[in-house]
Amino acid sequence: MFSLYYAPNTCALASHIALEQAGAEYRAVRLDFSSNAQRSADYLRVNPKGRVPALVTDRGILTETPAILQFISQNFPQAGLAPLDDTFEMARMNAFNSYLCATVHVAHAHRMRGNRWADDPAAIAAMKAKVPTSMGDCFDLIEREFFAGPWVMGEHYCFSDMYLFTIAQWLESDGVDPGRFPRIARHRQTMSELPEVRKVIADESSGTAANGR
Amino acid sequence: MFSLYYAPNTCALASHIALEQAGAEYRAVRLDFSSNAQRSADYLRVNPKGRVPALVTDRGILTETPAILQFISQNFPQAGLAPLDDTFEMARMNAFNSYLCATVHVAHAHRMRGNRWADDPAAIAAMKAKVPTSMGDCFDLIEREFFAGPWVMGEHYCFSDMYLFTIAQWLESDGVDPGRFPRIARHRQTMSELPEVRKVIADESSGTAANGR
Repeated sequence: MFSLYYAPNTCALASHIALEQAGAEYRAVRLDFSSNAQRSADYLRVNPKGRVPALVTDRGILTETPAILQFISQNFPQAGLAPLDDTFEMARMNAFNSYLCATVHVAHAHRMRGNRWADDPAAIAAMKAKVPTSMGDCFDLIEREFFAGPWVMGEHYCFSDMYLFTIAQWLESDGVDPGRFPRIARHRQTMSELPEVRKVIADESSGTAANGR
Repeated sequence: MFSLYYAPNTCALASHIALEQAGAEYRAVRLDFSSNAQRSADYLRVNPKGRVPALVTDRGILTETPAILQFISQNFPQAGLAPLDDTFEMARMNAFNSYLCATVHVAHAHRMRGNRWADDPAAIAAMKAKVPTSMGDCFDLIEREFFAGPWVMGEHYCFSDMYLFTIAQWLESDGVDPGRFPRIARHRQTMSELPEVRKVIADESSGTAANGR
């Protein structure tokens, strides 16, 4: 039994979808970011970084979306969430996921979390102002160079699909028109209709505290 | 035969050390960042992101340090660079590497690459001013919470050691006193004395264009 700490509208959605698609037994634990629960003493004992996702396993706690996605795919091989025996394909997926976590998610974070990187309110406002450009540039590159289609990596669905879908959910609030990226927009539509994705989004929206089978 | 595109003083050092420690046959191709070679049309065909590292393999090109490190460790199992059969330990290492790439490296990047996230020169200066604080906070957390010792993950050396060493090389230029982190400082000293690390650093410093066995 896993416990996944998450908050709605965060990158934890990707791990939540992965657990559901893997058929894992899990409990989803919602953190209330509006009361800054991610910085509470209790939660900092779970994840000293004060962020989500965190996945509690019987061997210890894992953090960081790319690590959690690979871990779930390896522990539920029958779910077919990654070509586990092909180290080159795994690396290609992990490279895509690294780009999402270290470049795309970071571009997005400059809208709400500018205080991580500057103290001056004018500088924080200047960062916020550039988010539509920097996020738009990232998605241009994905649409043009990295998205093989119909799934992110080509013919086979994998954990990179969950992660791209998760971050693409932020485009509108980041001031980027999703219509600029027709292939990614189709992918997002397809993803949103998968039954496990619908269930997870409904659960996160309703604040259901415990999910899983 | 692999080709690794790198520039000195970048995160490509970690992949360079990995190739050397794996005993891989490889060629190291130096990019001249001072002439912006990473943005040349030729290099953008290798890596459309215009960054290093990029690893050319006989199956295609891989980018992003965490993906490349895992790939090398899997393809040279005899080098013992990771506990390949333990998915939990692999995830713990990948979580650490994700933290380095998406949080620590990103904190550092605000010193020289602020134009990725704002256009206003005053905002870029404000970002630069906070780098000693944000990098210092990251290394505090590593020293206190994540560094098991004597190696990053505990008793066994792994690819996370190469990556931490690489990023710790930036502390002085980021305005952080490495003496604040005695365990990381000892690790850095130990790493710097490994023969493969000495060779790679010497090769990168001298601009040797082709290395490897």
